[in-house]
Amino acid sequence: MALEKINQVNDIKEIPPEEYDTLAAEIREFLVGKISESGGHLASNLGVVELTMALHLCFDLPEDKVIWDVGHQSYTHKLLTGRKAGFDKLRKYGGMSGFPKRKESDCDCFDTGHSSTSISAGIGLVGARDLLGRDEHIVSVIGDGALTGGMAYEALNNASQLKTNFIIVLNDNHMSIAENVGGMSEYLNELRTNEVYTSFKTGVEQSLNRIPGGNHLANQLKRTKSGIKQLLIPGMLFENMGITYLGPVDGHDIQKLLDVFRKAKRVKGAVLVHVLTKKGKGYAPAERHPARFHGAEPFDIDTGLPKNKRKKANYQDVFSTCMVKLGQRNEKVVAITAAMPDGTGLKRFKNIYPDRFFDVGIAEGHAVTFAAGLAAGGVKPIFAVYSSFLQRAYDQILHDVCIQNLPVVFAVDRAGLVGSDGETHQGIFDLSYLSSIPNMQIMAPKNKWELSDMLKFAVKFDGPIALRYPRGEAYDGLKEFRKAIAYGKSEMLYEEEDIAILAVGSMVKTAETVRKNLKQIGYSCTLVNGRFIKPVDTEVIGELAKEHRLLVTMEENVRSGGYGEKVRDYVQEQDLPVKVLNIAVPDEYVEHGNVAFLYEELGIDAESVTKRIIERYVTMK
Amino acid sequence: MALEKINQVNDIKEIPPEEYDTLAAEIREFLVGKISESGGHLASNLGVVELTMALHLCFDLPEDKVIWDVGHQSYTHKLLTGRKAGFDKLRKYGGMSGFPKRKESDCDCFDTGHSSTSISAGIGLVGARDLLGRDEHIVSVIGDGALTGGMAYEALNNASQLKTNFIIVLNDNHMSIAENVGGMSEYLNELRTNEVYTSFKTGVEQSLNRIPGGNHLANQLKRTKSGIKQLLIPGMLFENMGITYLGPVDGHDIQKLLDVFRKAKRVKGAVLVHVLTKKGKGYAPAERHPARFHGAEPFDIDTGLPKNKRKKANYQDVFSTCMVKLGQRNEKVVAITAAMPDGTGLKRFKNIYPDRFFDVGIAEGHAVTFAAGLAAGGVKPIFAVYSSFLQRAYDQILHDVCIQNLPVVFAVDRAGLVGSDGETHQGIFDLSYLSSIPNMQIMAPKNKWELSDMLKFAVKFDGPIALRYPRGEAYDGLKEFRKAIAYGKSEMLYEEEDIAILAVGSMVKTAETVRKNLKQIGYSCTLVNGRFIKPVDTEVIGELAKEHRLLVTMEENVRSGGYGEKVRDYVQEQDLPVKVLNIAVPDEYVEHGNVAFLYEELGIDAESVTKRIIERYVTMK
Repeated sequence: MALEKINQVNDIKEIPPEEYDTLAAEIREFLVGKISESGGHLASNLGVVELTMALHLCFDLPEDKVIWDVGHQSYTHKLLTGRKAGFDKLRKYGGMSGFPKRKESDCDCFDTGHSSTSISAGIGLVGARDLLGRDEHIVSVIGDGALTGGMAYEALNNASQLKTNFIIVLNDNHMSIAENVGGMSEYLNELRTNEVYTSFKTGVEQSLNRIPGGNHLANQLKRTKSGIKQLLIPGMLFENMGITYLGPVDGHDIQKLLDVFRKAKRVKGAVLVHVLTKKGKGYAPAERHPARFHGAEPFDIDTGLPKNKRKKANYQDVFSTCMVKLGQRNEKVVAITAAMPDGTGLKRFKNIYPDRFFDVGIAEGHAVTFAAGLAAGGVKPIFAVYSSFLQRAYDQILHDVCIQNLPVVFAVDRAGLVGSDGETHQGIFDLSYLSSIPNMQIMAPKNKWELSDMLKFAVKFDGPIALRYPRGEAYDGLKEFRKAIAYGKSEMLYEEEDIAILAVGSMVKTAETVRKNLKQIGYSCTLVNGRFIKPVDTEVIGELAKEHRLLVTMEENVRSGGYGEKVRDYVQEQDLPVKVLNIAVPDEYVEHGNVAFLYEELGIDAESVTKRIIERYVTMK
Repeated sequence: MALEKINQVNDIKEIPPEEYDTLAAEIREFLVGKISESGGHLASNLGVVELTMALHLCFDLPEDKVIWDVGHQSYTHKLLTGRKAGFDKLRKYGGMSGFPKRKESDCDCFDTGHSSTSISAGIGLVGARDLLGRDEHIVSVIGDGALTGGMAYEALNNASQLKTNFIIVLNDNHMSIAENVGGMSEYLNELRTNEVYTSFKTGVEQSLNRIPGGNHLANQLKRTKSGIKQLLIPGMLFENMGITYLGPVDGHDIQKLLDVFRKAKRVKGAVLVHVLTKKGKGYAPAERHPARFHGAEPFDIDTGLPKNKRKKANYQDVFSTCMVKLGQRNEKVVAITAAMPDGTGLKRFKNIYPDRFFDVGIAEGHAVTFAAGLAAGGVKPIFAVYSSFLQRAYDQILHDVCIQNLPVVFAVDRAGLVGSDGETHQGIFDLSYLSSIPNMQIMAPKNKWELSDMLKFAVKFDGPIALRYPRGEAYDGLKEFRKAIAYGKSEMLYEEEDIAILAVGSMVKTAETVRKNLKQIGYSCTLVNGRFIKPVDTEVIGELAKEHRLLVTMEENVRSGGYGEKVRDYVQEQDLPVKVLNIAVPDEYVEHGNVAFLYEELGIDAESVTKRIIERYVTMK
């Protein structure tokens, strides 16, 4: 077993070359075995086994730095740097992260999670290296999907000015999570299919050489700086930007990878190595369905099918169905995704209304201003996007949508804790960053029916409006409460006295359990579904303050800038005779782990909240 | 006078072609005359006189839509659409905006202000047009500087997929506000200097035609999709992305512009017209010093010199001096700007420490992650950036800097009201969007000495830290108070009783006047310089609450998510026996106008605040 010899960084250098293929196969077997049990990112990791091995063979970690864009493809890197045992608690609370983490290993030089950051970070590391007089190599590994993110381009534009070595590895698998989109993708496709670089190059050179005088012309052309290079060198798009292009090279051929990396090391300045890989490589189900095996639940290795069958509908399923209906009823409804047609549930809309569906690639900033343009042009755009990725478009929401008060609907998915992806992906800031933007309205549904009602409300609303809902199973309780949505108004669920809970979104479900708990031990408890985070229903706060001694707010967002702070603010300003207790995510980053477990850790599960309320209530003067 | 005949949109179409030059000259004279009195953007506007005329001649506004990227170059467009009289109150409160505004004219189809949005918005307008079955033309006019912004690239990547006409006009003047940077800029420079497109193209074709068999080869090459186009067509970088390239064309030759626009209209899909213009064209001082005449103060037309000489130092001057000193003392200090070396005051640092200075172009997202990389690599980056532009990097701050707790210093310039640039540029959100980010600290200096002290403190601090200061004249009062900065601690200025004012940043100056006002009419008033917005100094709040009946917070930020809300939150949570009054910018966008006047309108000038405090105080139980 070659893998047994790998116990710490650089152990791979002791493996004889003839065992590379064996090692690669063992790594794949290890990864498939572990991820089939724990769940995790599979397809992307299987695609970069040889690429990672080659990087570790050719470079000296931890002195040399490898930055993994997005970072979910770093499993082989973790394996090769002494973290084999970590896979037993992969993505579990307190266990190994599914992403690179500086605090986890000195071989992880920069934390990643969101897309398209690695070139920027790499240039920073290059700058520091040069200023401090060191000479390590800096390598940024970025996928072709991540190249649709504008930040990667901002970085490429800067990389071209470097005078010292900086290696960008373009891991080209022709995919983001879904099919990749846009002009760059098509351009890469041309390079990949050799149309430009091999046959054509050879053809032209041969043609020219065969022609009398053509030889002279060919040489002359080669000397010309800008013109002929376009003909004889692939990757001219990169060369045009001042970046040396090497490749494309077969990303599953370690020897070829080593050759090209050695060449890349000698370039003075930025060099892009174009590596072709296959997502899911070596595990047939993942090769066939790379999107399904992007972030996989535990699965059966033989069949590739998930071990746990889902029983209930997800919020994404509800959203999906609702979008199709809305599309049917209103021809002006259009849907936008930033490379997440599957994850957001927009795929059905796409299939039924292809002309009204737009996948813009990993480009949230563009997506929002594009939506603003659509709205200004008279149609009704709905941008479905994960909460943590919408952070990328903060300025576009504030500057392009809200100043003009344009009717764009933001379907903010994965709002609240997402679980095993951890710190970079938790959707716990959207209430804060959206709340302070003028003209914006924010809602959150308590259950699946309300998501549908809110979406309908949002489509009719003439201004910017966001609705946020969590990842995973849609709550189907409290079905009996389905009061029509009125602007800025909350929904009374149970009216009693003493304690009032004002909960929003996913926390209404928790609050319902808390209410029952409290009732059981003899407390009288009102429960209100806040519905609107912005504007806050100040009228109901006033009323609740009259009839209750303690007002509890509950939200799945950090406390700072969130819903509870707004409620407390109103209570204080109006000098209302009620105490306030805010239940929210503490003001810190939340690491990976099972969501139910994280709730407990953060003290926002039903048991903890019940306890906290009683504690507060009994100590009240 | 040709300009006299222009009173509404499309009047220009009645002007005979032989008068175009006269009209252009008159427009320039008009603009120079008006802006010399009012101040405003000059160089960029003088550069696009003929370009704007040609657009108005060739397209039918308001049906056809022209989107002006950034938008400060829309003065000729405003002139040609019936807004001549508006120049008398240009950029004044209640008067005409210096940017396109939908509420101002139906010829302004999309509001702009920040850079690089126009292509995204344009694609949105194209999408709406096509879905609604209309056939107007959509034109996005974008500068080469704005092309360094990643969002423009995200949009180009999408534009390539369009099947219907969309015209992108690249207004290439080889500048952003300062010299343009990066690979794209160099690429455009090559196109511009004709190296590729004319002589070379002709040369190769002629060479091939002269060679026996070469003619056949040339034809064969032309038919090949990807290869030879690189040789025979300029703008291959754009063509590679799937966008038709036309140009370059002289942007001061109306006839040539009309020809190329007519050609562009016939393209099915996205077409980029490369137009070469000269910033400041036609007014010698602006041609010589385009950066100085970017956003000009009132000036003398003959000499080009400002009418009002500055007497006191700006905060930017103080920052500039301090950066040079810090650079001298600490070799690890590096400075970053996103295309604002002059505006931020970093130019001197650049001149003295060129190796430690980085202008990344208009690319705030990249700038922040680049800074994170520098910090991770062991140096000390200071990113000087305008508050409203830092909004573009919200996710990078949260995701790349703060999760890793990296010691990046954010020098947040133009924080607070900026005045005549208006809604898109007011720096009134940074306290809100930075406050809810874990691991971030935020400070604001009361005067020029404190800016210097805070910058020194920030450079020594081991974590993400922002200091925000306003545009313009540095306050040099309260010189006698210069207590050493301690983490999270405020600074007591005057300790009395009854009323306590807790002010941050620029508002300390206002608060000092308020304190004097109050004292004069017999109120006793404590004044505290808050210093830290995050963490809030809760200790001082507790103390102030004991000795005072009213606690007044003052900040130049929207109320929602700002400093006052945090103070009030603490008072409520701790049940402190003090009333709170928050003085802040109301939660809305603030239009253009003189800053002192805006303060009055918003009720945050010293007189208004004094009145508000007295009103609140006398009505207190």
